[in-house]
Amino acid sequence: MLNSNRMYGYTGRFLRINLSTMEFKILELEDKMVRAYLGGRGLNIARLYYEVPKGVDPLSPDNKLIFGVGPIVGTGFPLGARLNVTAKSPQTGILGDSNVGGHFAPELKYAGFDQIIIEGRSNKPVYLYIQDGVAEIRDASGLWGMTITKAYEAIRREIGDPRIQIALIGPAAENLVKFSGIFFNKSRPAARTGLGAVMASKNLKAIAVRGDGYVEIAKPELFEKIVEEVEIEVYTHEQYWPRRIMGTTRILMAANRIGILPGKHFTEPETPYAFEISGEKLALKYNVKNRACFSCIVPCSRIFIVKKISEAFIGEGPEYEALAGMTVRIGNRNLEKALKAIEAINNLGMDVISVSEVISWAMELYSKGLLNKEETGGLKLEWGNMEAVMKLLEDIAYRRGFGDILADGVIVAAEKLGKGFEIAFHVKKLEMIQADPRGLKGYGLGFAVSSRGADHLRSEPFIELSDNPELGLKMFGEPEATLRLGVKGKGKLVAYYENICALVDSLGVCKNLAENMNILDYGKMAKLIEAVTGMNITPIEVEVIGERIINLERIYNVREGVKREHDTLPERFLKEPLKRGASAGHVIELEKMLMEYYDTRGWDKNTGIPTAEKLKALNLIDVLEDLQRRGLLTS
Amino acid sequence: MLNSNRMYGYTGRFLRINLSTMEFKILELEDKMVRAYLGGRGLNIARLYYEVPKGVDPLSPDNKLIFGVGPIVGTGFPLGARLNVTAKSPQTGILGDSNVGGHFAPELKYAGFDQIIIEGRSNKPVYLYIQDGVAEIRDASGLWGMTITKAYEAIRREIGDPRIQIALIGPAAENLVKFSGIFFNKSRPAARTGLGAVMASKNLKAIAVRGDGYVEIAKPELFEKIVEEVEIEVYTHEQYWPRRIMGTTRILMAANRIGILPGKHFTEPETPYAFEISGEKLALKYNVKNRACFSCIVPCSRIFIVKKISEAFIGEGPEYEALAGMTVRIGNRNLEKALKAIEAINNLGMDVISVSEVISWAMELYSKGLLNKEETGGLKLEWGNMEAVMKLLEDIAYRRGFGDILADGVIVAAEKLGKGFEIAFHVKKLEMIQADPRGLKGYGLGFAVSSRGADHLRSEPFIELSDNPELGLKMFGEPEATLRLGVKGKGKLVAYYENICALVDSLGVCKNLAENMNILDYGKMAKLIEAVTGMNITPIEVEVIGERIINLERIYNVREGVKREHDTLPERFLKEPLKRGASAGHVIELEKMLMEYYDTRGWDKNTGIPTAEKLKALNLIDVLEDLQRRGLLTS
Repeated sequence: MLNSNRMYGYTGRFLRINLSTMEFKILELEDKMVRAYLGGRGLNIARLYYEVPKGVDPLSPDNKLIFGVGPIVGTGFPLGARLNVTAKSPQTGILGDSNVGGHFAPELKYAGFDQIIIEGRSNKPVYLYIQDGVAEIRDASGLWGMTITKAYEAIRREIGDPRIQIALIGPAAENLVKFSGIFFNKSRPAARTGLGAVMASKNLKAIAVRGDGYVEIAKPELFEKIVEEVEIEVYTHEQYWPRRIMGTTRILMAANRIGILPGKHFTEPETPYAFEISGEKLALKYNVKNRACFSCIVPCSRIFIVKKISEAFIGEGPEYEALAGMTVRIGNRNLEKALKAIEAINNLGMDVISVSEVISWAMELYSKGLLNKEETGGLKLEWGNMEAVMKLLEDIAYRRGFGDILADGVIVAAEKLGKGFEIAFHVKKLEMIQADPRGLKGYGLGFAVSSRGADHLRSEPFIELSDNPELGLKMFGEPEATLRLGVKGKGKLVAYYENICALVDSLGVCKNLAENMNILDYGKMAKLIEAVTGMNITPIEVEVIGERIINLERIYNVREGVKREHDTLPERFLKEPLKRGASAGHVIELEKMLMEYYDTRGWDKNTGIPTAEKLKALNLIDVLEDLQRRGLLTS
Repeated sequence: MLNSNRMYGYTGRFLRINLSTMEFKILELEDKMVRAYLGGRGLNIARLYYEVPKGVDPLSPDNKLIFGVGPIVGTGFPLGARLNVTAKSPQTGILGDSNVGGHFAPELKYAGFDQIIIEGRSNKPVYLYIQDGVAEIRDASGLWGMTITKAYEAIRREIGDPRIQIALIGPAAENLVKFSGIFFNKSRPAARTGLGAVMASKNLKAIAVRGDGYVEIAKPELFEKIVEEVEIEVYTHEQYWPRRIMGTTRILMAANRIGILPGKHFTEPETPYAFEISGEKLALKYNVKNRACFSCIVPCSRIFIVKKISEAFIGEGPEYEALAGMTVRIGNRNLEKALKAIEAINNLGMDVISVSEVISWAMELYSKGLLNKEETGGLKLEWGNMEAVMKLLEDIAYRRGFGDILADGVIVAAEKLGKGFEIAFHVKKLEMIQADPRGLKGYGLGFAVSSRGADHLRSEPFIELSDNPELGLKMFGEPEATLRLGVKGKGKLVAYYENICALVDSLGVCKNLAENMNILDYGKMAKLIEAVTGMNITPIEVEVIGERIINLERIYNVREGVKREHDTLPERFLKEPLKRGASAGHVIELEKMLMEYYDTRGWDKNTGIPTAEKLKALNLIDVLEDLQRRGLLTS
């Protein structure tokens, strides 16, 4: 066993690999870093901030690709199987960061490492094979060009170990598509912010891990007690069975009910054919079994089969983001065609959210006569034309014709075509997810301030969907905070759940537990950390770690050029009220919420930059000094 | 096909059998009766009221046992498979009435009948075999004395048709246990009000039915449209999956949360070991598959397996009432022992609710030293002593020793022992279900006024569990109506859902659809009736039918001796506030709610008797005259 008794919950080691020099280093995890950032996302941003200088080209050898796991991973804690991947994003030019479940994270730990830092660039395609503390570089020339499924199967065959866990990239990443992802065992992507392209830029096709280690727990009895309590809370949660059976696809009907669907590029917030493309329909007609991440008790992933003569296929998923993205967002009412498109997107190795934006953006232009067949290379981009979509997906991944125009993201596409800027739905160059923030205002604020752009998983203030004012009053002193159309209290709400997200991403726990089921608060996390690592930690100290991570990410982004004016949303959401559905008449009152958010965060309201006082309180003195040196400290 | 074109939705015939004379009559269903009472429960109470004179001994040949189905049954309408059984109750001396699902009801219709009326008494044990319009009396001497399972299997073997549907009674009924039921295919009982004893008193062990007919639908296209709409509403209902997976057992954790469990005979409204005996635990550990009633899309019944060396067993169910009854109510924390006890109760053929009351009542007396081992025949009736419970179940069914004292119900037991009156939890001699009305006030009012005693299924105002004041405001003009601890508006709430219950029991639809999911209102029922039967009917006319049934049941009960003072609850619920849990401090403010209820109903507030005006409005002129003749009309 590689673990040292010193660091309960951790392997105590991390792996640094330079692909330019083929140098490997096994290093001791620094106690100080663990106390400040826990692991996973927190530890990753710290590495990125300290090790990757300002202004580095994200696709150059100077960028670093960092895989990190937290102390909870591999302990058997329910829903504790998450991995965090971090680099400078080639898509947004700021923080690139994505979090993924499955079985890779615990396997990495059992193989002996809490973190892998990939540096440099190999001169030929390679893949990395890590087994029980030993890392090996293997030739991947034969794998280069393969789709996700083919490459996955080829590596499994080559290694011959059925328990091997693989992270890999597909053709889209190899072609440096800016929204290409890293896929884990075929259908679980770390998809957002273009980390696949970073991996491809290093000529690294895959990482395979396998280990027989285990994670030592400091206080097993306390840990068992917490696990038992959490299990009962999960099993008796009113959403347990819908979550288990439909996963996130259950959201589609709910989103239709409250009028926040992204129908036809955010012009149709509800649709009469919702049931036909719903998670309910999937569960009743297509799903055949469930699949869980490591040690999960809410097996929310689903294996489905489409039975169609000569076109039958089997797949895993989809999540709500993919489902809504390949149905309502692009005007498609055919569930089976959507499933087929999602399979193709996964197999090519792309982020389905960004894909759905670039395509629906082009479709809106096309429907308004602002884009024509000559420009699209003959593709009739009518709403729901899935034959055109299937062709376009390949063209994007292989950067052919009109596909190449879309392959760098929606804002670059608008620049290339010289049009469509006002309907390019992104924040900080990251395309927007499948929820209309006019009907879900906390989410809207979350998109505007998130450290990676228009994404829900940085704050996920799911609780506002409860529409229960008592919760808001209790948690934030503001009843409106937990009303989805409320405004007051949203700054506090989003800041709180950003901290929680940062913490769970750093501990290695799933957001379904902490945000969606609302089961992990600072107090429970403190106990959990104590049980696993043996650290004595108070709920307030836990909160401070969450805040520290959020502040460091912010400062990283500020250093790379993010300004107050980038904390915004596309104009449609700020100015055009929703025309139909249960949120009709609403725009998003961003400015008010933003001011409250900065206030809650202790950030300068004019610049959105953390204040000296806040950074001192978070014990980020060197960061404060660096900011000062760069002339970026504004108050 | 036996159906006549004249009566869409009905077979148009009913069967009258006199077991004293062995006379069979096949009669035409009267159009007038159908228009006034629809079918099922409505048609049954009309027969009972008009055909069984006042004061008849329920166990004499003069009582009639009536099986009725409604027009929706057998059409394929979702959750439309209910059968209603009616007689004068030997347990309560008033209306005996119970409703059951499964596959018997549609089979009866396919065999050619909407109703069977059993009269007289056979001079030896017989069973009835009905096949495609032909009825046959068969000897049941060999079956008499058999348990439910054994008799069921023997009859299936004898008939040899795998699609046969069987209603049958067990040893408890044969011994005239006052809370014995009629069981349908082993585990689905029409259990309340002692109808098993009525069947036994006629020397009728079973009824087996089989048919190849079908139900003709008046407007198939309209019907299809309604079915499609209802299906989507059901499939996308937020409680769909919990209902499908846990059935009613999901209630246990919820009841614990809101502090309304009947723990230790209604002294412990919450318990720390709830999860160990919960529906969640059952689903996660014991259930192996689901089973649906005919044409149901929420297959809420479950097959479970207890794997225990040399004591393994397989069973179906249980429902919440059985689960809570054999766990918290009697102080038992062992789920497997509870399942075993429930299997025994079913196999002996008893009503688990009444059983749980008589046993927990005896246990409360025992725990207080008011009942001793000499009186119980040596049984140590300590809370949770399941060895004693298993023995006592047999003793009740076979009327041995202390079991015989309990076999006539809790109030008769108190009379026999001369003690325990104040904690005999019944209304109108029917034992109370597993919900403490102090924390669920609409249910409490429902128990007090129900036409069969302390039971939830006559009104099932499930919506008050929503605790959503907007619903109450919208539906009844009173926000408190849909708050479980509210008082104002409960009279309207209960009257409304009583009407709905009467209607669904008469149409043959499941209460899960109409009450619990709240999917069928008067408007939808009117359309459904039109589609199936071709009748033109308005929502108001539908409401009137519901009211008519409730009023006729009331008048039947008044004729048999029910008075205003019987519309009450045991004193513990009126005077002792709950001591713990989420409903702590509450008693039930019955009088206020009762006054509102009578007012809503248009009944005399001093006597609880329908007024002449109300009876005229319901077109119950002959009933009004009869009431007048008997001197029972008070205003």
